[in-house]
Amino acid sequence: MGIRVAVAGASGYAGGELLRLIAGHPHLELATATGFAQAGSTIATVHPHVRSFRDVVLAPTGPEALADADLVFLALPHGESAALAAQLPESVKVVDIGADFRLRSAAEWEQYYSGPHAGTWTYGLPELPGQRERIAASTRVANTGCYAVTTILALAPLIAAGVADPEDVVVVAASGTSGAGRSAKQHLLASEVMGSMSPYKVGAHQHVPEIKQASGARTLSMTPILAPMPRGILATVTARALTGADPREVLAAAYDGEPFVHVLPAGQWPQTGATLGSNSAHLQATVDVDSGRIVVVSATDNLVKGAAGQAVQNANIMLGLPEVAGLAVDGIAP
Amino acid sequence: MGIRVAVAGASGYAGGELLRLIAGHPHLELATATGFAQAGSTIATVHPHVRSFRDVVLAPTGPEALADADLVFLALPHGESAALAAQLPESVKVVDIGADFRLRSAAEWEQYYSGPHAGTWTYGLPELPGQRERIAASTRVANTGCYAVTTILALAPLIAAGVADPEDVVVVAASGTSGAGRSAKQHLLASEVMGSMSPYKVGAHQHVPEIKQASGARTLSMTPILAPMPRGILATVTARALTGADPREVLAAAYDGEPFVHVLPAGQWPQTGATLGSNSAHLQATVDVDSGRIVVVSATDNLVKGAAGQAVQNANIMLGLPEVAGLAVDGIAP
Amino acid sequence: MGIRVAVAGASGYAGGELLRLIAGHPHLELATATGFAQAGSTIATVHPHVRSFRDVVLAPTGPEALADADLVFLALPHGESAALAAQLPESVKVVDIGADFRLRSAAEWEQYYSGPHAGTWTYGLPELPGQRERIAASTRVANTGCYAVTTILALAPLIAAGVADPEDVVVVAASGTSGAGRSAKQHLLASEVMGSMSPYKVGAHQHVPEIKQASGARTLSMTPILAPMPRGILATVTARALTGADPREVLAAAYDGEPFVHVLPAGQWPQTGATLGSNSAHLQATVDVDSGRIVVVSATDNLVKGAAGQAVQNANIMLGLPEVAGLAVDGIAP
Amino acid sequence: MGIRVAVAGASGYAGGELLRLIAGHPHLELATATGFAQAGSTIATVHPHVRSFRDVVLAPTGPEALADADLVFLALPHGESAALAAQLPESVKVVDIGADFRLRSAAEWEQYYSGPHAGTWTYGLPELPGQRERIAASTRVANTGCYAVTTILALAPLIAAGVADPEDVVVVAASGTSGAGRSAKQHLLASEVMGSMSPYKVGAHQHVPEIKQASGARTLSMTPILAPMPRGILATVTARALTGADPREVLAAAYDGEPFVHVLPAGQWPQTGATLGSNSAHLQATVDVDSGRIVVVSATDNLVKGAAGQAVQNANIMLGLPEVAGLAVDGIAP
Repeated sequence: MGIRVAVAGASGYAGGELLRLIAGHPHLELATATGFAQAGSTIATVHPHVRSFRDVVLAPTGPEALADADLVFLALPHGESAALAAQLPESVKVVDIGADFRLRSAAEWEQYYSGPHAGTWTYGLPELPGQRERIAASTRVANTGCYAVTTILALAPLIAAGVADPEDVVVVAASGTSGAGRSAKQHLLASEVMGSMSPYKVGAHQHVPEIKQASGARTLSMTPILAPMPRGILATVTARALTGADPREVLAAAYDGEPFVHVLPAGQWPQTGATLGSNSAHLQATVDVDSGRIVVVSATDNLVKGAAGQAVQNANIMLGLPEVAGLAVDGIAP
Repeated sequence: MGIRVAVAGASGYAGGELLRLIAGHPHLELATATGFAQAGSTIATVHPHVRSFRDVVLAPTGPEALADADLVFLALPHGESAALAAQLPESVKVVDIGADFRLRSAAEWEQYYSGPHAGTWTYGLPELPGQRERIAASTRVANTGCYAVTTILALAPLIAAGVADPEDVVVVAASGTSGAGRSAKQHLLASEVMGSMSPYKVGAHQHVPEIKQASGARTLSMTPILAPMPRGILATVTARALTGADPREVLAAAYDGEPFVHVLPAGQWPQTGATLGSNSAHLQATVDVDSGRIVVVSATDNLVKGAAGQAVQNANIMLGLPEVAGLAVDGIAP
Repeated sequence: MGIRVAVAGASGYAGGELLRLIAGHPHLELATATGFAQAGSTIATVHPHVRSFRDVVLAPTGPEALADADLVFLALPHGESAALAAQLPESVKVVDIGADFRLRSAAEWEQYYSGPHAGTWTYGLPELPGQRERIAASTRVANTGCYAVTTILALAPLIAAGVADPEDVVVVAASGTSGAGRSAKQHLLASEVMGSMSPYKVGAHQHVPEIKQASGARTLSMTPILAPMPRGILATVTARALTGADPREVLAAAYDGEPFVHVLPAGQWPQTGATLGSNSAHLQATVDVDSGRIVVVSATDNLVKGAAGQAVQNANIMLGLPEVAGLAVDGIAP
Repeated sequence: MGIRVAVAGASGYAGGELLRLIAGHPHLELATATGFAQAGSTIATVHPHVRSFRDVVLAPTGPEALADADLVFLALPHGESAALAAQLPESVKVVDIGADFRLRSAAEWEQYYSGPHAGTWTYGLPELPGQRERIAASTRVANTGCYAVTTILALAPLIAAGVADPEDVVVVAASGTSGAGRSAKQHLLASEVMGSMSPYKVGAHQHVPEIKQASGARTLSMTPILAPMPRGILATVTARALTGADPREVLAAAYDGEPFVHVLPAGQWPQTGATLGSNSAHLQATVDVDSGRIVVVSATDNLVKGAAGQAVQNANIMLGLPEVAGLAVDGIAP
């Protein structure tokens, strides 16, 4: 008998990915999956790829459907987690995939999101120093944002080591379309996206305060770009060098022994395709010959390390399971 | 201590997929992986997605590297398996991913392939009636072709049941580019393929005799099409109806209980994306209102059910392991 | 001073393509462009690629906006052309991109479309024998469907010559996503489409009666497939051979001198990418060695030869302009 | 009788695009097209999309084939233009698409390219102040690099106006695969590219000195990224703001009246898809709220404004033709 987990908001892409990971997890069992407009539908019609749960019917999203699970994953639109979480018993562990509880600063929340700040939960990025232990001791964990985790992994050790300047960090990050969700919007149509790249929210992306909070960056420009691929984030993170240290070596030392963060052999650069379906982040770094800037490139699968896989990793830690259980280190390529 | 398996020809796409599946398999252990031009390279450089084996170095392909494995997967170019297989001890089980030993007819081999016919091994498609038992009793198994397995699963039960006419079967099947291999060829460049569809080998594809042999079709036209996606086969298989039977029901009955063959709910059509990374085939069928032809659509991942996953499924059977061990039923989408 | 043309329904993909072609046409001048929900918007926001008309504002769709044009292109949803066309003066020439007036048979219209049959206009496929003259003499022309024109060009000369059997024709045709229109629908999202192929309307597609009417086919199965590319149709058309004639030679003779229909050199197969942005159809044919079926493959750009380009070609004929004016013979590749 | 132009190196992607543009140009006539390995092949087989020249046979590349043209386009690998150009009579005008003659500094040439510096020709970017006149007076013009032109258009007016800091400019630019050429290389295979993004030449790209020379930037980090699309460059260009000026207004003023450089309406961001097949660059700019950096995004078609279209624009100026002749302002979308 496995540990019983529930997925609230199971009809979206992150929800579907949670279902896939739970189906393949050796210690977790699906208690329930809920939806809004699609409540009453089978998984067979909502996520035809998740054959394991094909006959499961989505329940309506609400505390009654979720309260008897050991752990609940919230995969809800931003701003909708707080109300639901408040209705769950304290004995039920919760991992929130949304943004509601990520930020410490209410002022920053209000600047980048709408509505009041719901509060602050333990930040769910175990590879940060000391964070694994904090997650293990928590019953409420705020999962990382997809751009955020991809950027923070590239940046935090370099700033912590005094190697990269926390001022004037510049990030340009391309994401696959699943990061924009499953709602039918014209600019996300295949016809509009295939063969094209386009930036959005230029000059003010909501992941900026999360990245600064967790990486130590003090000022940061981030330009997100929609790329013609279903999954994957490639973040190019640049910061002024403060020392002559090799940034690759700093990263390699920081992540030595981490199962999911891979600093590639020198000279080999990440490609998002190599992370597909895995919970791995691939990193490489160098110093630009003309400007002297440190350039780090970081690749993840936005639905795994950027969302559902990260959530399962956090849940594993919270539940005392092996941290890697049910998660792939190897991507699917080509 | 797991069962020791080897992969000959590990630098190609099917070889890489075998490595990924072996890394995640609960009962298999990688004895060795071999290459030709890339012998001496690490998996980290050849298959950056297979992090589990990143420090494994490809050995030169030859019997000495392979002979102490319990089972060898041959993922070699067509025509190169026979010579190597002949040098392996009979005690080593072999699954050949190539075409060398699939056909019973030497005449058909010579018509569609070049060089002499090497012989005939047990055909590795366990979902055919009686075939699972034959595979279990074999030490040499010829894995299915990717177009072939996708088409045969759609067609064989309908012909066997007398529902579909074995004469004048028409198949049009689109494949992702990984089916064409990893050799650098101009027509396989991303620039040439993206945004374009193109047929090839029209009028005479080498999978035709394999499909006829295993499905019972007597005459068959198959047009293969290169599609702008890395993986996946979508086969549209049409045959004249001989009775008024519902072809979907015939297929559903034939595959009842099969873990990897999924006849979708009535009205829901397969999409290759839902099979990505899984060993599943998705099927649906109807009768065309104008012509009365039966139309079956079948979707697989050409590198999994069409190659490496099918090979592991066969190996599981040959080794007395659970048939589903190490294989995903659920695809990765989107 | 050019001939004044109007586009009704200019906010969709076919409408946008008409605007692009009109902007580059040496003899046409845009009188007005109309929309429904987007009336009042500039072309700059609706079609950012059509810089030539960036300051043009979409007028509401209605007869008053259109009646003073010399020729009106109707790019409306199926079923909406008839009411609008009835309100246009007879002196205004009309090319309807929709399906309303394509079919001769009211019974077939009612079987495949909804609502009453509006009537029958001259069928706008100039490459059919005698059709160019009929179009020149018409003030009302029904443009071809995209799958239909791609298939008819491949099939009609072979049936007319007695070379291909009109019974039991089998067509499998893949289309880029722009053929499905610009409405925001979940199954057309980039996330759902990229990396995947999926059939739809299997067993009963509404272009079947149009293809039969114009090609002479008597029974026909057509399976349409959504392909991960923005544009292009690749139709694989197979029919039983009635004679030993070389189907390529029959097609080459039929289209000798046609500016937009290109039978490729023997052995070279069409690819949709080579037709992008052009009004050309590329054809090739052979006889399948196993079944003896004739296999013709036909490629077009669904928005040009399949919609807007064909409409301009018809307009050129109706207006007494050079038939090729404003239309590209050469595609854009890669 | 048109002006006679020749294309040396017509078998590659830039060469094919030149052929397409020449075929549609009202004043140019193709004198000859040459190739290396493909000399002797017809255009029909080398560029199946360029139907207009289908029967043209590629001549061997050499001065004898080219010397009687009025103008020669050199579309050769970097480093091969100088030797050929030296053998052409001074009366033959030359536009070199390659890099050989772009840089003023021999030292920078030697740092970023191999071999000796060939010299410096007039830089072929007419939208730079005074450059149109210099091009008109030249018989030898060095065409812009694709990343370079996309970045320079975004940056030069801001530095010239004293609005953007020329120190510490950061550029991240994604390119479609055609920018990497047509040679068959494994990492450019469709299987490797589709669904993936990957950086390359990180820390030292050869367009850096060209961008600095033409834009006034003093230090510059540029990270190029291979994107899963056949064409298009999206450059994200960031620089510290030196004043409170609105960077969009500076750009709009600089390019007022330019036919091919389009500063989009405020708030609308460029997408590469909207430039496909056109000679247009689309620009937008803002100031990042957190860092205060100016962020400019620039989109072009790398084979048109980034190569062949820019070359034709330069040729038009050199030949006294209308600058826009034969070039599309409008892209092809979707």
